Amino acid sequence: MAEHKWTGCVKSLKGVILDMCGVLYDSGEGGGVPISGSIEAVKRLKESDLQLRFCTNETQATREKFVSKLQRMGFELSVSEVFPPAPAVAAILKERGLRPHLLVHDDVMPEFDNVDKTNPNCVVIGDAAEKFSYKNLNDAFQVLIGLEKPVLFSMGKGRYYKETDGLKLDVGVYMKALEYASEVEAEVVGKPSSMFFQTVLNDMGLQPHEVLMIGDDLVNDVGGAQQCGMKGLQVRTGKYRPSDERHASVTADGYVDNLATAVDLILKNRAQ
Amino acid sequence: MAEHKWTGCVKSLKGVILDMCGVLYDSGEGGGVPISGSIEAVKRLKESDLQLRFCTNETQATREKFVSKLQRMGFELSVSEVFPPAPAVAAILKERGLRPHLLVHDDVMPEFDNVDKTNPNCVVIGDAAEKFSYKNLNDAFQVLIGLEKPVLFSMGKGRYYKETDGLKLDVGVYMKALEYASEVEAEVVGKPSSMFFQTVLNDMGLQPHEVLMIGDDLVNDVGGAQQCGMKGLQVRTGKYRPSDERHASVTADGYVDNLATAVDLILKNRAQ
Repeated sequence: MAEHKWTGCVKSLKGVILDMCGVLYDSGEGGGVPISGSIEAVKRLKESDLQLRFCTNETQATREKFVSKLQRMGFELSVSEVFPPAPAVAAILKERGLRPHLLVHDDVMPEFDNVDKTNPNCVVIGDAAEKFSYKNLNDAFQVLIGLEKPVLFSMGKGRYYKETDGLKLDVGVYMKALEYASEVEAEVVGKPSSMFFQTVLNDMGLQPHEVLMIGDDLVNDVGGAQQCGMKGLQVRTGKYRPSDERHASVTADGYVDNLATAVDLILKNRAQ
Repeated sequence: MAEHKWTGCVKSLKGVILDMCGVLYDSGEGGGVPISGSIEAVKRLKESDLQLRFCTNETQATREKFVSKLQRMGFELSVSEVFPPAPAVAAILKERGLRPHLLVHDDVMPEFDNVDKTNPNCVVIGDAAEKFSYKNLNDAFQVLIGLEKPVLFSMGKGRYYKETDGLKLDVGVYMKALEYASEVEAEVVGKPSSMFFQTVLNDMGLQPHEVLMIGDDLVNDVGGAQQCGMKGLQVRTGKYRPSDERHASVTADGYVDNLATAVDLILKNRAQ
């Protein structure tokens, strides 16, 4: 059926990358709740012959704490399979000898424990949520405007995400704010950066055309993966909105109701 | 001298428009302090044959309170000579039957007393300063994303302004944030909007080429005035930074150390 013509590609697939928030679970009070059918869907993928990785722009916790939360919800996954932006940024800072002023969530701070933060010569922002106060944004701006060559890292560039009590502004909104204030272009670490997706592909040892990305964010998950040469599926959960299916610049290779349906179609079509 | 070749135009001038914050005074704790020489400079302009108006993007007070503050500092000016964005926005809202969700400074709220704010169908932002919390920005975003045709008004689009204790983020930064989050283009009411400058010219009954704008903001004061057909002078006070003099897209007709110097040169050259 036309609705699922993307399934034509699944026989040649060797791996799947899953976005997490909005695909596996909805975030919110108490850490969030699993999306119906997604725990079983992850289990089925793990039992298949497909490689599986998780690629997230989550920056409200260390990788360890984040994975523990998902495990407590019932998901089978391990720290080494999960790729968030913070460890990637910490590595870049060390490599380039940069000392960050951090505007990030308190719970992700430990990822930067071993990074020199004295006399900052760059700014790193993540999804700081309530910490995005006028004062804190102004402090970050003052660091940037005081640098001869301002450097701003943004861990992702999402517009918003869905919590159980509604849509919430994501880090990309504050990235745009600081870019405008300081006349600087941020370096995005996280989806949709091709370099970020490539790190995951390298870890799998696969070529882009052998891998399918599944996410709820049309631009950052689907569009980012497509720019990298992968196929991209959008699930109609999480931050999905019907208007995504008539977006001006990104068209997903397929749209499915949720992860359970996607995995069902993938495995059924591979078995044929 | 080449430094002041802009003075060639002053003989044909019929009016001057002054920006206020950063030209007349520096804002900050306790309302701010006058910039040296500016009280006397305003007095000299008033005593001259030039028409004088004040055009400001100030949105932290009602026009009446704002003018009182300046009068207490020693400036000779009256409410009818001062053009800020809030009364202009209130008029537009009434004209177009729009009901705003307001994210503005508490002290400017009375300007919207007579505007219907129930069941909002647009968002108005001003320089809300500390009120630009994550929660308040998220509330404004939720109104916009819930509208079929989101409408956002921004009272000015400045990047930052100078207070006595340093540079502070201005409303334009949050305009960019909401534009990105909601995929909407804001309607700017205030400088550098040509429509806004035109209101002041209409009040003076003058043509653009007969009027000189003096401000500390290269893009919003000088660039905006130039786009409208006026000459624009930048003062090296307030938010002025030396890099403004090699800006990529806006070049002022002249740069002067402060308002006192500008007025001195204007009056001296007119007398010759």
